[in-house]
Amino acid sequence: MSVTPVSFTLNDLPLRDDLRGRSPYGAPQLDVPVVLNTNENPHPPSKRLARALADAVAETALGLNRYPDRDAVRLRRGLADYLGHDLGTANVWAANGSNEILQQILQAFGGPGRVAMGFEPSYSMHPIISRGTGTGWVSVPRDADFRVDVDAALAAIAEHAPSVVFLTSPNNPTGTALDIADIERVTAAAPGVVVVDEAYAEFRREGTPSALALLADHPRLIVSRTMSKAFALAGARLGYLAAHPAVVDALQLVRLPYHLSAVTQTVALVALDHADELLGAVDDLRAERDALVEWLRAHDFAVADSDANFVLFGAFEDRTEVWKAMLDRQVLIREVGPPGWLRVTVGTPSEMAAFRDALLAVTGR
Amino acid sequence: MSVTPVSFTLNDLPLRDDLRGRSPYGAPQLDVPVVLNTNENPHPPSKRLARALADAVAETALGLNRYPDRDAVRLRRGLADYLGHDLGTANVWAANGSNEILQQILQAFGGPGRVAMGFEPSYSMHPIISRGTGTGWVSVPRDADFRVDVDAALAAIAEHAPSVVFLTSPNNPTGTALDIADIERVTAAAPGVVVVDEAYAEFRREGTPSALALLADHPRLIVSRTMSKAFALAGARLGYLAAHPAVVDALQLVRLPYHLSAVTQTVALVALDHADELLGAVDDLRAERDALVEWLRAHDFAVADSDANFVLFGAFEDRTEVWKAMLDRQVLIREVGPPGWLRVTVGTPSEMAAFRDALLAVTGR
Repeated sequence: MSVTPVSFTLNDLPLRDDLRGRSPYGAPQLDVPVVLNTNENPHPPSKRLARALADAVAETALGLNRYPDRDAVRLRRGLADYLGHDLGTANVWAANGSNEILQQILQAFGGPGRVAMGFEPSYSMHPIISRGTGTGWVSVPRDADFRVDVDAALAAIAEHAPSVVFLTSPNNPTGTALDIADIERVTAAAPGVVVVDEAYAEFRREGTPSALALLADHPRLIVSRTMSKAFALAGARLGYLAAHPAVVDALQLVRLPYHLSAVTQTVALVALDHADELLGAVDDLRAERDALVEWLRAHDFAVADSDANFVLFGAFEDRTEVWKAMLDRQVLIREVGPPGWLRVTVGTPSEMAAFRDALLAVTGR
Repeated sequence: MSVTPVSFTLNDLPLRDDLRGRSPYGAPQLDVPVVLNTNENPHPPSKRLARALADAVAETALGLNRYPDRDAVRLRRGLADYLGHDLGTANVWAANGSNEILQQILQAFGGPGRVAMGFEPSYSMHPIISRGTGTGWVSVPRDADFRVDVDAALAAIAEHAPSVVFLTSPNNPTGTALDIADIERVTAAAPGVVVVDEAYAEFRREGTPSALALLADHPRLIVSRTMSKAFALAGARLGYLAAHPAVVDALQLVRLPYHLSAVTQTVALVALDHADELLGAVDDLRAERDALVEWLRAHDFAVADSDANFVLFGAFEDRTEVWKAMLDRQVLIREVGPPGWLRVTVGTPSEMAAFRDALLAVTGR
């Protein structure tokens, strides 16, 4: 039962004009045996860790009538220690998922009359959150190998003077990592802040440095991270960033007070204490990914090089048909990225076996 | 240690112009024995409840590698049942504190070129979140008794055609509840959505109805609530709203995907299961509040009628001096509201005794 006067719909509400006709963002939430569509880590926390989380929450619960630490100081200290690079509490900020981190950045540095820029195909929340904060969006295409053409990037920056530039490395949905020299060239040229979205950083191949190494010399550079992927904590919603302390100061002006619950802060702190366990599967997932890339290429699929926990492959004349046929075989992958391509998350060995079997059956290879 | 190039400050960043010179919102986080400044419920969860929360979190933790239910269906069902009034899942939406609820409302219905309206003094986050979403702000003054002058309200609505109108009942920081007939007149006249912020609803005096009773007939009416106050869960950050399902549909277009963690959803569900315990102190707090109002009046302070868990009192020539002198005596209250007035949260009997002793000493009455 619900209070639902007949004949009143979304169209009868004074919705903002630019939202009319849009659909909510998000992959289909379907209940199938093999879920490889949202780049989750397939390994759940152990019972031991679940108990450690519960015990810490039991302690926190005794003070839940009080507001949490608005500045999340202990958590930021822990995240800074995890990141290394001589970072401290003042360099780090945390929020409910990196989406909220990105929204706060756009609220502080974007907004009406300003533009953000990204190199697409990339994470589709970048333009969505930009629009949601009234920030214009400039899309610069990646090259045929899904790399950022730095000369084109510099030209676009000179033309549009973006307040916020998004560089995603490794890039979602293509898996492509950026050269650190390219990040540095873009940062030097950009008139505003440059956000390197490193949600998948822990999965990058050996020899690929993180943009964290650039922070000491670039006070307008922001590196965003998340505990949703390598840390296997998508359900806990903990995103964070590292940047110059002045950037963190700026975000204090737009963050909602007490945005991060005491329980979230506790869960993230316990997770940091158990980083070895949580990150323990990363090497296996990287090996599984490299094997998957090889297997796909051996079966004549086009495959983008991947530094993440997913692989973009194709190219299909009708990718929707392939996606649906895979789903019919109980394997849920993601229809995302450039036309003709599909994205598959790297799961457990048995999940990947199910994926390979289904793909061979569906494509007849 | 932190990465801090000398000579780079907030002023060197391309901050949005309207944020320059602003300070972060929030009461001072001070560690004193008697904390009566943020309208928290003074009664912490019991050990039994803390254990129930922990056990439920232990279960949830085993699936934390997966994203949470993006639509928080079970939680919304539980909140609807708690609210009653024939509300169902489709009528309810939840977020990280009612601040995020309000931000989503303004993102959907406000924005550049639109204005929101409030009747001040009122909750100071309303104008702050309006500005944060690029929404203009129109402030209409309350009358000398801190009541909304409905004729003035209707005139202001006719003049400014606000997309969002905030009615706060009971009002923060004055404690004033609105007549339901007044809410209905404002809602009938408003061209956009009307938000009745009922963060303190459970504390209202007998005979004061909730605006929930109006929802069936008013599809542009939104009632926002929180578990931070009566539910004694400020640390858990759970705000929610009840409205026509079309309003909930609209918010899907602006909410960040997976904004509400699996742990937060679990904690709130367990809290609903233990509503009797959590809300158990509400009647005592109401009695304590009424006694406080009487005591303050008996000592010749001006006092606003209160339907909330706090009391606004005055009037002081130099309220900052009184606030500081109270703090010197280890009693933290809030310097907020109209000039000359101070706000005190209703705490435990011993906390209120400490407050009364300190106030008498400070004011020499």
